Amino acid sequence: MPQPVTHATPPPAPHRAGGSASLRTLVENGDFAAAQDWLVTHQVWEVVDAIDRMGAVDAVAAFRLLPSDRAFDVFEDLEPSRQQAVLEVMRGAEFSAFVDSLDPDDRARMLGELPAKVARRVLEGLSPSERTMTATLLGYPEDSAGRYMTPQVVVLHERLTVAAALARVRERGADAETVYTLPVVDAERRLTGVVELRELLLTDDAATVADLVVTHPPRVRATEPAEAAARLMADSNVRDLPVVDAEDRLLGLLTFDDADEVIEEAETEDAARQGGARRWEGHYMAVSVLQLAGTRAVWLVLLLAVSLLTVTVAYGFEEALEEVAALALFIPLLIGTGGKVGTQASSACVRALAIGEVRPSDIARVTLREAGTGLLLGTGLGVLAIGAGLFFAGLDVAIVVGVSLLLICLLGALVGGISPLVARRLGIDPALVSAPVVTTVVDVLGLLIYFVVASLLLGI
Amino acid sequence: MPQPVTHATPPPAPHRAGGSASLRTLVENGDFAAAQDWLVTHQVWEVVDAIDRMGAVDAVAAFRLLPSDRAFDVFEDLEPSRQQAVLEVMRGAEFSAFVDSLDPDDRARMLGELPAKVARRVLEGLSPSERTMTATLLGYPEDSAGRYMTPQVVVLHERLTVAAALARVRERGADAETVYTLPVVDAERRLTGVVELRELLLTDDAATVADLVVTHPPRVRATEPAEAAARLMADSNVRDLPVVDAEDRLLGLLTFDDADEVIEEAETEDAARQGGARRWEGHYMAVSVLQLAGTRAVWLVLLLAVSLLTVTVAYGFEEALEEVAALALFIPLLIGTGGKVGTQASSACVRALAIGEVRPSDIARVTLREAGTGLLLGTGLGVLAIGAGLFFAGLDVAIVVGVSLLLICLLGALVGGISPLVARRLGIDPALVSAPVVTTVVDVLGLLIYFVVASLLLGI
Repeated sequence: MPQPVTHATPPPAPHRAGGSASLRTLVENGDFAAAQDWLVTHQVWEVVDAIDRMGAVDAVAAFRLLPSDRAFDVFEDLEPSRQQAVLEVMRGAEFSAFVDSLDPDDRARMLGELPAKVARRVLEGLSPSERTMTATLLGYPEDSAGRYMTPQVVVLHERLTVAAALARVRERGADAETVYTLPVVDAERRLTGVVELRELLLTDDAATVADLVVTHPPRVRATEPAEAAARLMADSNVRDLPVVDAEDRLLGLLTFDDADEVIEEAETEDAARQGGARRWEGHYMAVSVLQLAGTRAVWLVLLLAVSLLTVTVAYGFEEALEEVAALALFIPLLIGTGGKVGTQASSACVRALAIGEVRPSDIARVTLREAGTGLLLGTGLGVLAIGAGLFFAGLDVAIVVGVSLLLICLLGALVGGISPLVARRLGIDPALVSAPVVTTVVDVLGLLIYFVVASLLLGI
Repeated sequence: MPQPVTHATPPPAPHRAGGSASLRTLVENGDFAAAQDWLVTHQVWEVVDAIDRMGAVDAVAAFRLLPSDRAFDVFEDLEPSRQQAVLEVMRGAEFSAFVDSLDPDDRARMLGELPAKVARRVLEGLSPSERTMTATLLGYPEDSAGRYMTPQVVVLHERLTVAAALARVRERGADAETVYTLPVVDAERRLTGVVELRELLLTDDAATVADLVVTHPPRVRATEPAEAAARLMADSNVRDLPVVDAEDRLLGLLTFDDADEVIEEAETEDAARQGGARRWEGHYMAVSVLQLAGTRAVWLVLLLAVSLLTVTVAYGFEEALEEVAALALFIPLLIGTGGKVGTQASSACVRALAIGEVRPSDIARVTLREAGTGLLLGTGLGVLAIGAGLFFAGLDVAIVVGVSLLLICLLGALVGGISPLVARRLGIDPALVSAPVVTTVVDVLGLLIYFVVASLLLGI
């Protein structure tokens, strides 16, 4: 539930307080009185961040020091791994109270990440109605809009007067996660529109919902990816998005705070993938070095295997290298620059795809644009490279270097620009077209271009 | 203003319609009747996207085909460059009507990006009160919270009853951008708390605002960066954030939709910088190839200059290369892998900094973590590389390659992990520590490591 702030947090902190490293220190040193003081003088989200940063054992110790009225608010926003650690040390009534305090959507997502045994224990501890609601949300695919929606919504019907609608909000609003976006449904619970609470409040009591309803609102199916839903919300500036089933019947609302969480998760995953790694689970400062290495190892080994092709290519032209040793000097410069041009193009296109500026159907135009960009950059850099070539070697090698660089820049821009669109078409996340992947491909092909140009121009 | 949807948009599009490429085609072919039809049968945000994608001339032509009731909604969300193009063809009353229709914060941001002459004309066309409001917002630094806030806010005082507070919302709400977050101020307009409209509505009329107020809410100074404010909103799950001056007096609210825009802009800029380029202004499909090349050229030329150091290093060890030609074969593999490890580390740390998981004060712990990760990865990859070395060359070269790779991986992880934190400490955007920058540094130092290891172990 959107919880703007809690009562009873003394310091009017205008921005991030700098001292949250100290909770860790206080707990590590066993200074529990000071830690307790720290926990009640910081904002809830600062407490959450501080606990997320700590190792599991210390995190639980710190959590145990929270006064019970704050503990629920903090628990709700912790990383799932930390929630699990906290639940593991709880028994009976306390355990049930914590699990019950969560919103159904938050609970479903937490359960989705817990080991099956713990998840079963959690489900069994719930009241029947809460259990049904949670089980329903768990029935939607991971990362789908259904997992993130709140099913507790105040719905209206078109024939209600404004006064009756407001009365309904007052009566049912306490259980709902939001009352600001009010979906309007027909007799079969099919979504016909939405009304903003603001409109109800600012309109004469005798008007009806039908006078205020905005028809054909953006909506999303529960089985669609949550990220697509969240992007749609950002594009269309809606605060809460109705979630429907295949027959357009209302199932719930995706609220702004869950959408923010979805986008932040997606951006973090994209950033990791763009860097050529898997997303680590949890807080950067809390995962182990072994886990960090694990997120990076797969791509590295894969790309190392592909990089062996560079050795093979160089091996194939070993005689040329022996004949004109100066050629070896320019290898890092040439393929390095190609990789950079490719990285620039791929990161531009991955981002443009993510925010919807580019679609897979734009592939022909993107190809032209990136080819033009690559040629422009290659021409400029090629001229500079000829200068460098003249300084370190002769005119013939300089020309080989310049021409190769022109072609390698064109290659880099094309590989970097087109691959993300091709990936999307194939149903692969474009963010996997990372700097490391583009660099590796351009390394191999660029080296080949260099040696072929050298062979042709130098006649070796 | 958050405008969830407009009336009169027939298709209940559950997700992005695929046909918006066709508006461009329709306008290019002069098929204005069909274009007009397209414009009224798509959602406002789809129209905005389609117009943003087009060249300036076609964009204006398309905009002119909009029915006047939709034109305002579309205008409001267009890219500033497109807004400018539209304004340029307008005269007199129509011009003023469009400028007046914008929210003060949207108008201030548009004006900030217009040429001074056009901006003056816009300001002169405004009513005195709107002009004052806009001029005030323009007084805040670019990209500050003050530029993005709405000054039109309904404020409450603690002694008001709930009934009186609701009456005040009804009376003044029409002019406000949001009525869901209601700041509470004292007699000097200093922020003392916030009340959610929801709480007012669900509470007994006789209660007072003082009973409901949440004190010490998160807040931001108008001069602070808008991105920091938006990140704070995401962390603390607030829908609208109070913006205050140095004396904590309320100036306005940063609303969720502006925060979304700020975050999306910041992420796009980070993505461009992480790819080693400047952010292009406007829509990827609408900027020219020359502009695209321009955003990439500066870094490329700069890094090309640094890359010349690789040529210098190789030149310095030319004798070693001539003596053991097999060494040249492994250059791309070694420095390529180092660049990849560096890219992984830098993208992880840049992202962790952006979302606040890592702070500059964590530098010692990040160094240890990345050193550990680099050593783990380097050991694994080093063993694989020895195998490759044995296949293409002898045992001595293989050992040189393996040891070098271990050291280069350590180097890459350290350079990639530490540089973003150092950048942040120096007040430079960590996102500028991009894959291309890390790769270039690792290329030069990695090559040096390789040749030094070779000299020591092979005695050349």
